[in-house]
Amino acid sequence: MGLFSKDIQSMQDLFLHQLQDIYYAEKQIVSALPKMVEKATEQELKRGFETHLRETETHVRRLEQVFSMLGRNPKQVDCPAIDGLLKEANEVSSEVSDKRVLDAALVASAQAVEHYEITRYGTLITWARELGETDAADLLAQTLQEEKATDSKLSKLAESRINTRAKSS
Amino acid sequence: MGLFSKDIQSMQDLFLHQLQDIYYAEKQIVSALPKMVEKATEQELKRGFETHLRETETHVRRLEQVFSMLGRNPKQVDCPAIDGLLKEANEVSSEVSDKRVLDAALVASAQAVEHYEITRYGTLITWARELGETDAADLLAQTLQEEKATDSKLSKLAESRINTRAKSS
Repeated sequence: MGLFSKDIQSMQDLFLHQLQDIYYAEKQIVSALPKMVEKATEQELKRGFETHLRETETHVRRLEQVFSMLGRNPKQVDCPAIDGLLKEANEVSSEVSDKRVLDAALVASAQAVEHYEITRYGTLITWARELGETDAADLLAQTLQEEKATDSKLSKLAESRINTRAKSS
Repeated sequence: MGLFSKDIQSMQDLFLHQLQDIYYAEKQIVSALPKMVEKATEQELKRGFETHLRETETHVRRLEQVFSMLGRNPKQVDCPAIDGLLKEANEVSSEVSDKRVLDAALVASAQAVEHYEITRYGTLITWARELGETDAADLLAQTLQEEKATDSKLSKLAESRINTRAKSS
């Protein structure tokens, strides 16, 4: 990204920029998830993070397919938002002494990351459709459905088990 | 936040920490929105940001009421997530040369911020209810509804007008 030039001149440029942003974000999430698996205590949460790591690897590959559909090589641009979300997740979890409270904090952090992805994929799908990139939109929509399903699973897990255990700590 | 101590020992501590985090975030959003009003071209978007600025000021006051319900003074903790989201919004908008494409970028950035708030308020409400803080939960739920309504209005605005105008640029 050229910080002193105006590199985004059209919707196509903006779409490509956002795609490079989420590509960077997904790769950062692939790096962060193993640490979350390690920190989680509740077995269902641990398994949930493991499953989501495999899904996230698929999301990276899907983005590479989208780049290919656009005739572009996959490229990342810095994404201060995901850096901030992961930094916050890390800072909060390092503050928590009780393992059960830590699980609740990990779920909240993971849901913040999911919501970032949900909004970004939602925007990308709308833009892809308007630019006539329907195959790309369909592929991105598969990922969006998986991100929403993960967010929903995390909500249920938090409400049913983790918060109840943490409250008794 | 003490970076070298474990300051969060219970769900009550985690709830309070998250409350201080979103209090900081809401205040940063109050600071950022006037610049978004200024950058927006489409009148409906400009008015939407102005309305949301007034709503956000109410959200700050509601959080102060929640602190008071808990017998605490309002306090902020650094929130790297909102800092990252606002930095990214600023960086992307500084890259865009066309005013209509800029409107589309502003909507996407605003929706990313809304989604951060939606996930944080969702978590806070769940935790407040589990901790028996039902009055606090009800107050936070009012804000959550407004954040969801803003996100939904931004989606409709983007789909109906801004993206169509930007595509023709």
